[in-house]
Amino acid sequence: MSEYRYLGKLVPPEEAAEKLRSLVEPVKDVVELAVWDAIGHVLAEPVTAPYDFPPRPRAAYDGYAVFSGDTPGRLRIIAEAPLGKVDLGLRIGRGEAVYVSTGAYLPDGADVVVPEEAVKREGDYIIVDRRFESGKNLDPAGAYVKKGQVLLDRGYVVTVSDVVALLDVAVTSVKVYRKLRIGIIATGGELFKPSNPQITANKILQGYVAETTTSLIKWALEALTPWTTIVDYDLLPDDVDTIAWRIERMLDHADLVLLTGGTGPSEVDNFYQLLGHLRAEIVFRGLAMRGGRPTSAMLVDGKPVIGLSGHPVSALHGFIRVVEPLLRHMASVRRTPSKPLIYARWASGYQTPFPRLVRVRVWLSNGEFWAEPLPKPQQLSSNIASITMADGYAIVDAGEYRRGERIPVLLYREPSREHISG
Amino acid sequence: MSEYRYLGKLVPPEEAAEKLRSLVEPVKDVVELAVWDAIGHVLAEPVTAPYDFPPRPRAAYDGYAVFSGDTPGRLRIIAEAPLGKVDLGLRIGRGEAVYVSTGAYLPDGADVVVPEEAVKREGDYIIVDRRFESGKNLDPAGAYVKKGQVLLDRGYVVTVSDVVALLDVAVTSVKVYRKLRIGIIATGGELFKPSNPQITANKILQGYVAETTTSLIKWALEALTPWTTIVDYDLLPDDVDTIAWRIERMLDHADLVLLTGGTGPSEVDNFYQLLGHLRAEIVFRGLAMRGGRPTSAMLVDGKPVIGLSGHPVSALHGFIRVVEPLLRHMASVRRTPSKPLIYARWASGYQTPFPRLVRVRVWLSNGEFWAEPLPKPQQLSSNIASITMADGYAIVDAGEYRRGERIPVLLYREPSREHISG
Repeated sequence: MSEYRYLGKLVPPEEAAEKLRSLVEPVKDVVELAVWDAIGHVLAEPVTAPYDFPPRPRAAYDGYAVFSGDTPGRLRIIAEAPLGKVDLGLRIGRGEAVYVSTGAYLPDGADVVVPEEAVKREGDYIIVDRRFESGKNLDPAGAYVKKGQVLLDRGYVVTVSDVVALLDVAVTSVKVYRKLRIGIIATGGELFKPSNPQITANKILQGYVAETTTSLIKWALEALTPWTTIVDYDLLPDDVDTIAWRIERMLDHADLVLLTGGTGPSEVDNFYQLLGHLRAEIVFRGLAMRGGRPTSAMLVDGKPVIGLSGHPVSALHGFIRVVEPLLRHMASVRRTPSKPLIYARWASGYQTPFPRLVRVRVWLSNGEFWAEPLPKPQQLSSNIASITMADGYAIVDAGEYRRGERIPVLLYREPSREHISG
Repeated sequence: MSEYRYLGKLVPPEEAAEKLRSLVEPVKDVVELAVWDAIGHVLAEPVTAPYDFPPRPRAAYDGYAVFSGDTPGRLRIIAEAPLGKVDLGLRIGRGEAVYVSTGAYLPDGADVVVPEEAVKREGDYIIVDRRFESGKNLDPAGAYVKKGQVLLDRGYVVTVSDVVALLDVAVTSVKVYRKLRIGIIATGGELFKPSNPQITANKILQGYVAETTTSLIKWALEALTPWTTIVDYDLLPDDVDTIAWRIERMLDHADLVLLTGGTGPSEVDNFYQLLGHLRAEIVFRGLAMRGGRPTSAMLVDGKPVIGLSGHPVSALHGFIRVVEPLLRHMASVRRTPSKPLIYARWASGYQTPFPRLVRVRVWLSNGEFWAEPLPKPQQLSSNIASITMADGYAIVDAGEYRRGERIPVLLYREPSREHISG
C-alpha cells in the first residue's frame, strides 16, 4: 500500500469516477409513497395512468352546455353545473341549457359548450345566434391520458411540476427508491462550528478556521443530488482512531461517507492512515486535477468512503468529478430535477494542463451566457474570499479553449445583465 | 368599476408589472444577522472586509518554513506549526526550520516555505539543495482582502458560497432586509388538500380537484425569490365575504397576498366582487397573454393583492410576468442566487399573437440547449398531465421566432442528453 503514501499515482477524474461506479452496487430499496411525498425521489417503476381521464367530457370555457342540434336557437337554462362533480345526475332535453364554468363536467345530453360571451341572455333563456359544432369548447373523455399510458419513466426524479400533473389525472402513489443516506465527517483540529458572530470573528483572527467546507458540499448535495439525505454529520480532530471508529458507526446506517480535510500529501494525512485502520479496499488515491488533487476513495464492506479536500472549492471539485456521478449511479437516476448548471462561452481563451474548477464571472448578452475567470493579481493558494467576486464555478477540462467555446458552469448567483469588469 | 366586470381592458404584462412597481413601496426593514443565518436575504448595505486578511503570512503548501537566506542548506527542524494558531510564539534562528502544513501561519523569522517533496530528510534535519526566493509558497499578510474592501454589494442576495467566503476572512455578521412575507389563498369549492392516496384518487374520480396550483407557486417562490417567506396559507370556498375577511387578516402580517382561482370572466368571479368588499384600489384586471389572462391586481392599504389563475401553469405564468418583478422591486434586489433559468434555441419556428408560457422538451447538444413544444394532438383547455412529458416552461413573447432563436426556459427537469422525439 505504500504506493499510496504520497499521492504517487494520480488518476484522471473520469477514470476514477468510472472505477467507482464499477465497484459500487446501486441501492434498490423500493418504497411506495404518496406522490406529494415523492418529490426528489427516483422512480423505481414507470408511472402509468390508472384510468382514462377525464372520465367524462369537461367544459373548456365558461358558458352553456347544450346539444349542438339546438344551435342556433333560444334555450332555457335549467341549472348550473357545480365544479367538482363528475356525475351531475342531470340530463338536458331539447331546448335546454346548463351553465358550466371551465373544468365542470357536462350533463348528459350536452355535446358542446357555448361560451358565455357568445350568447345573449334574456331572463332564464339564452339566445345562441349561430351553429356550434359538436365537441367545441370541451375536453372529451380520455383526452388528457389513456389508461396504461406511460407518464414518467423509471429513473426520473419526481418534481413539483410532475406532482401537479399526476394529481390532475388521479395518480396518487408511486414506487420509488428510498433516498441515499449520506454521512459527512469534517476533520481538522483547526476547525470549529461558528456560533455567535463576535466569538466566531475572534476565533478566526486567532487562526482557527470556521468549518464551511461541508456547507458547500451540503449545498451541492441539495442542488445536484436531491435524491440523497444527510443522515449523520460530525466534526472531528485529526485523530485517526476516532475518525475510523466514527466512519464505522456511520456506515451502520449510511450508504456513503464523505470526509473533508486531512487528505493532503503530508505525514499527518488521515486518509492514508485510515486505510490501515479500517478493513478498507482502496479505489484511488489522488486525482490528476487542481484543486482537489488529494481526493481519494476506499470501500469499507462494499460501501464508498470518499476523502475530499478541506478547501471548500477543492472539495466541491472532487464532489463534481467523482461523487455526483457515483450518487447518480447508486440511485439509478436517468433524469434529475433542474440543476443550477448553465453553459457559458469563454470571453477570452483559456488553457490548463489539468482539469480545474475555476471561479468565473458570468453575464448575459443576447440570450447567451459569457464567462471569464477572476483577475489574478498574484498566485495564492487560498483566495476563498474571491468567491464573493464571482458568480459560478466553471468545470474546465485539461487543454486549450478558444474564445467563444462553451463550458459548463455551476452557478451560485444569477448572471449579471451586463459585463462587470475589474 | 363596471369596466372591470368582463376583463374588457387587457393590459400587456410588462406594462402591468411596471405599473405595480410604481405603486408599491419597497420593504426596507433592516436586521443584522450572523452570515450563516443570512442565506437568501438581501444585503441592505455593502459588505466590507473588517481587517486585512490573513493577518500574517500563511503556508500555501505542506513543507518547511525557513529563512530564504538559508537556502540552499542543511536546516534543523525545531518544531511543527499547529494549524489554527496565528501567533505561534515561535521564532526561527539561522539554520532552523519549522514544519508547516497548508494554511498554517508562519513563525517569526521565516519568509518562505520549502515544499515537503523538495527536501531530503535526515533525522531532525532537512537538506534543501537549491535557492528558494523570499515569499515563495506562502500567502502574504493581507493577500486575500484589505480592510475596507467591498466584498458584496447592496442588493445582492447572500448565497452559501458567499458565506464560505466571508467566514474565511472573519466577516461574521451582515445587515440585510427581513424577508418579504407572503400570504397565499387558494379558492374554489371543487378543491381539496390531498391526504391519503386512496381517498385522494376517489375524490379526483368523483370530480373534485386536488389543490396543486399553490404547490407550483411555492416552488416558484423558492426557486426565483428565495428572499420571501410564506407566512400564511388557506384554502377557501368561493365565498367572497369569507375571502375578503381572510385577506384582511393576512394583510395584518403579510406584505403581499396571492389568490389563486376565482379570477375567471364568469358571474362567480371572486376577484371582481372582492373589489367591492375590500377598500381596494384596482391596479389592473386581465393581462393580454395566454394562459393567465384573468391575472389581476389590487392594492389594499397600499399592499398588493394579486389574483392568479386556478390553472397551475397559468398561475405560474402570472407569477413570472408580474409577481416576480414586483417581489424583486419590493425587496430591492439586484442579484439573486442562481435560478433554474436557461436559454434554449427553438428547434423549429414558433409564433404566437400573445405572450405564452409553453411546455417544452429541452435537450443538450454541443453545449447548447434546444427546445420544442410538446406535440399537440388536439386543442385542450387543460392538458395538465402533459407536464410530465416536458422539461420546462418557455417564456415566450408575442411575435414570430425563427428556428435557432433563443428563448428563456424555466426548467424543472435537467435537459436530456439527446433529442427524445414523439
